[in-house]
Amino acid sequence: MLRVPFADLEQALEAALLPLAFTADRAGFCARLFAETTRDGVYTHGLARFPRFIATVKSGVVQPAASPRLVSAFGGLERWDGSFGPGNLNAWASMQRAIDLAHEHGIGAVALANTNHWMRGGTYGWQAADAGLFAMCFTNTLPNLPAWGAVAPTVGNNPLVLAVPRAGGANVVVDMAMSQFSYGTLSAYAQRGEPLPFPGGFDREGVLTTDATAISATERALPIGLWKGSGLSMALDLMAAMLSGGQATHQIPRDPLRESGLSQMFLAIDPSRLGLDREALEATADAVLADLHAAAPVDPAKPVRYPGEQTLATREENLRLGVPVDEELWRQLLAQAY
Amino acid sequence: MLRVPFADLEQALEAALLPLAFTADRAGFCARLFAETTRDGVYTHGLARFPRFIATVKSGVVQPAASPRLVSAFGGLERWDGSFGPGNLNAWASMQRAIDLAHEHGIGAVALANTNHWMRGGTYGWQAADAGLFAMCFTNTLPNLPAWGAVAPTVGNNPLVLAVPRAGGANVVVDMAMSQFSYGTLSAYAQRGEPLPFPGGFDREGVLTTDATAISATERALPIGLWKGSGLSMALDLMAAMLSGGQATHQIPRDPLRESGLSQMFLAIDPSRLGLDREALEATADAVLADLHAAAPVDPAKPVRYPGEQTLATREENLRLGVPVDEELWRQLLAQAY
Repeated sequence: MLRVPFADLEQALEAALLPLAFTADRAGFCARLFAETTRDGVYTHGLARFPRFIATVKSGVVQPAASPRLVSAFGGLERWDGSFGPGNLNAWASMQRAIDLAHEHGIGAVALANTNHWMRGGTYGWQAADAGLFAMCFTNTLPNLPAWGAVAPTVGNNPLVLAVPRAGGANVVVDMAMSQFSYGTLSAYAQRGEPLPFPGGFDREGVLTTDATAISATERALPIGLWKGSGLSMALDLMAAMLSGGQATHQIPRDPLRESGLSQMFLAIDPSRLGLDREALEATADAVLADLHAAAPVDPAKPVRYPGEQTLATREENLRLGVPVDEELWRQLLAQAY
Repeated sequence: MLRVPFADLEQALEAALLPLAFTADRAGFCARLFAETTRDGVYTHGLARFPRFIATVKSGVVQPAASPRLVSAFGGLERWDGSFGPGNLNAWASMQRAIDLAHEHGIGAVALANTNHWMRGGTYGWQAADAGLFAMCFTNTLPNLPAWGAVAPTVGNNPLVLAVPRAGGANVVVDMAMSQFSYGTLSAYAQRGEPLPFPGGFDREGVLTTDATAISATERALPIGLWKGSGLSMALDLMAAMLSGGQATHQIPRDPLRESGLSQMFLAIDPSRLGLDREALEATADAVLADLHAAAPVDPAKPVRYPGEQTLATREENLRLGVPVDEELWRQLLAQAY
């Protein structure tokens, strides 16, 4: 791992996008979202995802110049068509629109059809929470997870994001896929020959196992909560596809390089519209998290944490020491060797 | 198990409520919600919960005459105070208000403070979906689940409900708590001396186990998706408590008979406001569910199902043959021996 200054990473990403029919401002913003993902420690979805993103731009799956288009609107609820634009730019614009609707109506929601992979889902939770709003968003994906009781992947791992705003940007942000472990995590354990810390799927005999290689072979990864995550995944897919008028998981190409036409939902709530005092809100959150931190941990070295708790510290460290990047990916980026 | 006509069950429940300071219409509606829960096959939360409900009315934890009171409103978003009224009546009224707000603003949400246990959460999902709306609702609870990495119960199992409307009332309704197995399920397995079908918590050595007795002893039941369900539970608690201005899980009495002052959220979306054609919506849902049903099952005798799929068939059977009730509970109800 190499550490590079955040500005250098952002600039190199932007330089790689500019030749690809991104306008200057969109190249800059798309680059910033990738760079911030790596800066915040979500290494799987930042620079590590960039080569695949570039490949989908070059293949025409992602249309760099396309922006979301309003389809219909009523009060706090709107439908947009993502026009197959870059998934992170589309998602950011949609959450911003949900935030604006929430300012105007207390609560706002955008259903987005025909979009692409949003990269790090947590980005849009932080976006809303940094603006002082509560938020929820979710996306469908290609079929990559067996429904409970099914042999082969039939549902998506459909990431779900919830965000709670707190003072000083110390937001609580849940960013979770419906699979217990991602395929990236499974292959990392398989490569190291290590068992998973907890069962992550079924082996050929249909028995729960911690053997990542066996799970990759069956493709029977485990939904969170077994039948529960499977059902939740179905409901999120139905909501996103029906309300956006877009595609459901079963219609999305199974090849990650051709995964496109996703459906997403973005929802924001503005607490300031309810006469809720900001200090009272912060006191409520502080008390909840203080109670959590006071809980006796199973392992004295591992205090109980809330989702997103490490983000600000990781961000600060990466801004101070440089953002960790894989040397080969960094060389490839500087050479624009895509 | 005895089977009794649905109308008899409803009437007997109503008769038991009338002496307890419920007005006639509220006694009737509260009774209907309990009876419908048993009718729909959710036996843990219908008649089986009634003795505990009566006990909380008698002890003053539940105020039979109290109704929710509007605290503040802005566009599609409102805060209500549940005034410690009956949890099911409060929740029904709140979802109805969210539905009305969704008709008016496309999307509507009610944050409810100072309420009581809502009994079967799925009731309010079916309520919205039967009215043609998408819905989401969630509640906090007393601390009954260890946060991930904690020794003792610190978070709630905070049930989450999602509802998708379909033609003919064949709605998709997810109704899930954040624990893999409820304490009721754990004690049923423990009594029968049977192992759980999947690991449900930790034993004294901190090892995942299917031994329900061992889990009841440690109180270390498993959140769905391990750290994921734990984080989701925290976010739902924060959202409900902060937006309603009510209590968070850590403030709620740990005794089930004194569990009160819950915070809840009810959210509804009206698809008809988005120019979405009802037939097109139904076709999208039908195609998703047909794809699921076409999936090869692990066990040929167990086809893949969606959440809520059995509800209408169970309801029809129970209306035709009579609603199954525990003989002792039925005798107790007829004698009003509470």
